Amino acid sequence: MRISPALLQRTAKMIDKYALYVPKEGVFPKNFKVASIASGVKKNDALDLGVIVNTNKSRLSSAAAVFTTNKFKAAPVLTSKQVLDATRGKGINAIVVNSGCANSVTGDIGNADAQEMVSLVNSHMGGTPNSTLVMSTGVIGQRLQLDKITNGINKVFNDNKFGDDFQSWLNIAKSICTTDTFPKIVTSKFSLPDGKQYTLTGMAKGAGMICPNMATLLGYIVTDLPIESKTLQKMLTYATNRSFNCISVDGDMSTNDTICMIANGAIETEEITEASSAYAQVQEQVTGFAQQLAQLVVRDGEGSTKFVTVNVRNSLTFKDAKIIAESISNSMLVKTALYGQDANWGRILCAIGYAKLGNVKSLDETKINVSFVATDNSEPHELKLVVNGVPQLDIDEARASELLALNDLEVLVDLGTGTETAQFWTCDLTHEYVTINGDYRS
Amino acid sequence: MRISPALLQRTAKMIDKYALYVPKEGVFPKNFKVASIASGVKKNDALDLGVIVNTNKSRLSSAAAVFTTNKFKAAPVLTSKQVLDATRGKGINAIVVNSGCANSVTGDIGNADAQEMVSLVNSHMGGTPNSTLVMSTGVIGQRLQLDKITNGINKVFNDNKFGDDFQSWLNIAKSICTTDTFPKIVTSKFSLPDGKQYTLTGMAKGAGMICPNMATLLGYIVTDLPIESKTLQKMLTYATNRSFNCISVDGDMSTNDTICMIANGAIETEEITEASSAYAQVQEQVTGFAQQLAQLVVRDGEGSTKFVTVNVRNSLTFKDAKIIAESISNSMLVKTALYGQDANWGRILCAIGYAKLGNVKSLDETKINVSFVATDNSEPHELKLVVNGVPQLDIDEARASELLALNDLEVLVDLGTGTETAQFWTCDLTHEYVTINGDYRS
Repeated sequence: MRISPALLQRTAKMIDKYALYVPKEGVFPKNFKVASIASGVKKNDALDLGVIVNTNKSRLSSAAAVFTTNKFKAAPVLTSKQVLDATRGKGINAIVVNSGCANSVTGDIGNADAQEMVSLVNSHMGGTPNSTLVMSTGVIGQRLQLDKITNGINKVFNDNKFGDDFQSWLNIAKSICTTDTFPKIVTSKFSLPDGKQYTLTGMAKGAGMICPNMATLLGYIVTDLPIESKTLQKMLTYATNRSFNCISVDGDMSTNDTICMIANGAIETEEITEASSAYAQVQEQVTGFAQQLAQLVVRDGEGSTKFVTVNVRNSLTFKDAKIIAESISNSMLVKTALYGQDANWGRILCAIGYAKLGNVKSLDETKINVSFVATDNSEPHELKLVVNGVPQLDIDEARASELLALNDLEVLVDLGTGTETAQFWTCDLTHEYVTINGDYRS
Repeated sequence: MRISPALLQRTAKMIDKYALYVPKEGVFPKNFKVASIASGVKKNDALDLGVIVNTNKSRLSSAAAVFTTNKFKAAPVLTSKQVLDATRGKGINAIVVNSGCANSVTGDIGNADAQEMVSLVNSHMGGTPNSTLVMSTGVIGQRLQLDKITNGINKVFNDNKFGDDFQSWLNIAKSICTTDTFPKIVTSKFSLPDGKQYTLTGMAKGAGMICPNMATLLGYIVTDLPIESKTLQKMLTYATNRSFNCISVDGDMSTNDTICMIANGAIETEEITEASSAYAQVQEQVTGFAQQLAQLVVRDGEGSTKFVTVNVRNSLTFKDAKIIAESISNSMLVKTALYGQDANWGRILCAIGYAKLGNVKSLDETKINVSFVATDNSEPHELKLVVNGVPQLDIDEARASELLALNDLEVLVDLGTGTETAQFWTCDLTHEYVTINGDYRS
């Protein structure tokens, strides 16, 4: 196999993502507790089972979720959907997650297994039916080792392994990982006009099958702010469309993708509804928070060495801005060029050109501008590659090399046909990606 | 970088494609001549300029072409379209092709350069305007080195470098290559009910940006059978939809893709029209021929070690059969699994599940069957992975390994919802692909 010294060096220099992106402390929403355990499904005593519970009794919690649109929905997805439908998102007090086996394309047995996980957690939580959501991630098409998982769940509750400290949260974030190289946990405090402080905590896992409209992507967000359940679903859908649905590692959409959110209202204040004066602020807060989490998934994209923001602005429609950003983000040729630190902007234009637009007027070959943008503070901030459709033949290649050597890259596309903007986050395609996915099951 | 010994060995064992897929002799259609030359655009005196001419004076030739649907069409594509439009496909007597520079996204200068190539060939051919088609392939966004190319064209004609022997045809097939590892040339004879024999000769080049609806894919097919020009266009479109539009290397669609066909009618017989009794036979002949050529492009897919046929049958609609075949063929996870010889059929189902179908009824989770099929004569011929939507949990892994170790793989998907069938041809995604595309311009 031919691998250039430059590419080898690039892989060798891969940054220590754990050190950069995993927090060392955190504050967490009131009245949530978490536990995790090595059930034995994963090898080497790795954490592979997590339970998150809401212990707030002062009001009914609200829950919402966004699921994969893959036609082959995994058993845990179908089961969680049923629970949410039956409760209309009210009174969900637990989420149980296992990693190592996706319980997907497992037929009736798989559905029974997922329901067994839910029933068992329900019984430990006091017996209320339909109060638990379930998620699974790992290999598709294998049956769950249900005995190990039920033993694990029993142990978590019987030995009361729950905690609300930083280490407990970090561990549950670890327990949902598969090929992830670092656990993804984000936590942030925000204040509302009522003068009180609330907390959002979220976890997610990647790292393959990452593609718009959900991926093997599990994510959960919890908050102690009370939010009415329909409002919560609307907020989560909005946020997901601008975060988890705007990331791409490899363009494959999983059968298991689930993002869910629970608001337990443990902090006493008026419930947020669409009519609330603080509604827009909370929406913005949740969206920004979901974007932070989603970006961590891309940062850990399998084998990636680059984090790439694709900004498409001044589009006639939001939909077409997103389609173009997605087309660039999924292009294998763009992604390998960025790995190679190659200013091969022709591939970017090419990917724009084959995007399947809703409205052809969104793209006008004589108006398009394409630039690389510096993600550090270096100048010139913008390196123009194409101006009003005309390629710049005297591009400063030295500057291009400087920009492409950064770990964070930004591609800016200005369509000049309207005022809408979309962002997408993607990563490069590397030898390591092929290694990981050529060898996944061995 | 981690690369497993098994994967390294696989790459080391890459077959000698040149020996397997390049013919050592051939018969060619009457009254076509070809020439090729090293113009100096490519390094190391490599052939990079080819001209094919029709010398038949007994009747007007017919020509047809199918072009990229990328919004950013390269200058040679626009120029060739104009020529075909102006002539309605009649009287085209030359094709000039250069490799090394795609003359794409080069604005007005690029259009002038492409027209200059056409004019120069026209003048050498006797001065008839609009009698030449032009194609270019190579790096996007660089201006043609027009002086080298015009010198090359002049030399080809002034020194009469034309020939109609095997070596001349092989050389022109070489002159259009970029990252190809072998020239792609197919030639075949066929008889019609009139008792006469006709010949089809075709050439194509890959090997990146290969995706349905054309790719950096140049192909030309010539025949000495007379075919009426509108009929020829219809036949070529039909054949392309079942050949070059059913192949995928990396899912990127180029700005330059062109397949064209010239029928010079050098063999005296009645012109084929849609009303001809031999029409269906000729159509079938041209389609099968185009499939052979298109498959060679996939066999030479950048870095590929596997040639994969994806067969989707018993679909409610042809369109959905094709969409599903395409979704499987473009999945990076499927392609890396096949490189890894991993029977990870979950990824195949997953890619079926996220295919964007025209009619949701084409896919029924309870009726789908998925198998690996032996491409040699070994038994059992079919290894069933999913039967009526139920994954087979006792799959013979030893047999799966045998099948996946073959160079030619076949995936069979039976949707059980109708009677339509589509085929797609794809290849695996390998370390070598990343090397080639991370390093392309350096």
